[in-house]
Amino acid sequence: MAWRRAGVAAEVVGIGRQPLDEAVRLGAIDRYVTDPAEGIAQADVLVLCAPVTTIIEQARRFARYVKPGAVVTDVGSTKLEIVWAWEEYLPAGASFVGGHPMFGREVTGVQNATPDLPKGCRWVLTPGRRDTPEALARIAALAEAAGGAVRVMSPVEHDDRVAVISHLPQVVATALAAAALQCENEMGGVLDLAAGGFRDTTRIAGSSAEIWTDIFLTNGGGVRAALASFRESLDALEAAVADGDAEAIAAIFARANEARRRLPT
Amino acid sequence: MAWRRAGVAAEVVGIGRQPLDEAVRLGAIDRYVTDPAEGIAQADVLVLCAPVTTIIEQARRFARYVKPGAVVTDVGSTKLEIVWAWEEYLPAGASFVGGHPMFGREVTGVQNATPDLPKGCRWVLTPGRRDTPEALARIAALAEAAGGAVRVMSPVEHDDRVAVISHLPQVVATALAAAALQCENEMGGVLDLAAGGFRDTTRIAGSSAEIWTDIFLTNGGGVRAALASFRESLDALEAAVADGDAEAIAAIFARANEARRRLPT
Repeated sequence: MAWRRAGVAAEVVGIGRQPLDEAVRLGAIDRYVTDPAEGIAQADVLVLCAPVTTIIEQARRFARYVKPGAVVTDVGSTKLEIVWAWEEYLPAGASFVGGHPMFGREVTGVQNATPDLPKGCRWVLTPGRRDTPEALARIAALAEAAGGAVRVMSPVEHDDRVAVISHLPQVVATALAAAALQCENEMGGVLDLAAGGFRDTTRIAGSSAEIWTDIFLTNGGGVRAALASFRESLDALEAAVADGDAEAIAAIFARANEARRRLPT
Repeated sequence: MAWRRAGVAAEVVGIGRQPLDEAVRLGAIDRYVTDPAEGIAQADVLVLCAPVTTIIEQARRFARYVKPGAVVTDVGSTKLEIVWAWEEYLPAGASFVGGHPMFGREVTGVQNATPDLPKGCRWVLTPGRRDTPEALARIAALAEAAGGAVRVMSPVEHDDRVAVISHLPQVVATALAAAALQCENEMGGVLDLAAGGFRDTTRIAGSSAEIWTDIFLTNGGGVRAALASFRESLDALEAAVADGDAEAIAAIFARANEARRRLPT
C-alpha cells in the first residue's frame, strides 16, 4: 500500500496460493498470480512475506525462478539463516538483501493493513556476501519510500541486537506471566491485584507461540547470549535485595533508568 | 480530594512539617497543622502517607498520640512490617487497619493529585490482630467512598501476592533494562532498534530506586519466593528453546496467554 501510494513500482503483483481479490479491492496490490514460478520470473524486486522458517524453505523451492538482475528481500524477524539459505540457492546475477521492517500490529490479514504503519519505524537491511551496492541501494530506496528509517548491518549483528531488544523481552514477559499464573493457582487472589505495572510488563505475553517458536529456533545463539546477560543483571539485583544493599540496588536502577532515557524518541 | 468531594469527613486536616497552603488552595485539605502530636491527637481517622520505612519509624514516634477509639490506616506498598510496628506501639482502644490503595502516578506532589485516581482500583485492607470489625468497616467505607474496590486479606497474604504481581515485575523489568544497557555498551546499535515490545516491558524500569528499595527491604521473603517461581518458568522456557522443543514452548506460551486473559477487566 505504501509503495503504491509512493509510486515507486510500475506495478505491485501479489503471489498467492489463493486468489487475492480482497487485496486488489483494498488497494494493496495491482494484480495477482497464483503460480509462484510465473510470478517470481516476472519480478524485478521480490519481497518474501512469510514466517521465518517458511522463507528459509522457499529458498530451496523458488530461488531458481528469480531472474538475473533481480533483487530479493524479505520481512523475517531473524536474518542469518534466511540470508544463508537464499544466497546458497539464488542463481548468478540475482541478489538477496535481507530485510526486517520493525513494525506490525497484533492483528493480521490484508483487511488490517495500512500504508502509514512503516512511518518512522526502523527497517533493518542485512546484505549478504554476494550483494552489490546497487542491490542494497534499491531496497533501501524502497524502505525509505514506505517511510521506514533504514539501518544497515550484517545478518549476525542484526540477530544479536534483536535478540536483546526484542526476543529477550518476549522470553522474559512470557516467563513472568506464566509464573504469575502458577502463583495464582497456588495461592489465589494474585491476578486480581494486577495494576499498570504487571499489565505493561506482560503485554507481549499475549503473543502467539507459533511465530515466536520460529524466531527462537532460528536465533538460538543470540537468544542464549541475551539470556546470559539478563541472568547476570537479575542475579546482581536479587543479591542486592537479599543483602539489603541499598547502594547496589540504586546502581542497578540507575543503569535501568539510563537504558530508558537512551531509547530513541 | 476524593473524600472531601464525597463528604465523608467533617474535615480533612493535613499534618506536615512545612505549611501546606498549596494543598489548601488546591482543595486537597480543609486546613493543616505542623505539630504532629497536636494533629494526631485530634484525628478520628489517621492516614499515614509516607514511604514504607518512614511509616514504620512513625509508629515509634507518633503512635502514642493516637486517641482511644481512633483508627489508623496507611498507604504503604508492603504491609506486614507496618502492621507489626503500629500494633506494637498503638495505645489500648485504638486500631490499626493496614491499607494499600493500588493507584498512583509517575509524578508526585499535591499539584498532580486528582480525586478521580482511585476509581475502580483495588484498595487492599489488611487488618491486624487487635482490630475490631468496626474499625475495618470504617476504613472500608472510606476506601469505597473514594471509588476504590476493597479487598480484605492478612498482611502476609497481601505481601506474598503483591510480591508476584507488583514487586516481581519491577525486578524483572529493571534487570531487563539494565541488561539491554550492558549489551548496548558491548555491541552498540541495540537500543536504537527498540520497538513497542521493549518499551512496554521496561516502562516501569524508569522508576525511582528509593521507593523500591524500601519495598524490597520490607518484603524480602515475598520477593524471594516470587523470584524462585519466575526462575522456574524462565528455566523451563530457556530449556525448551535450547532443545528446539516447539511443544514445550507452546505449553509455556499457553500459560502466559491464560494469565493475560484472566486479568481483571
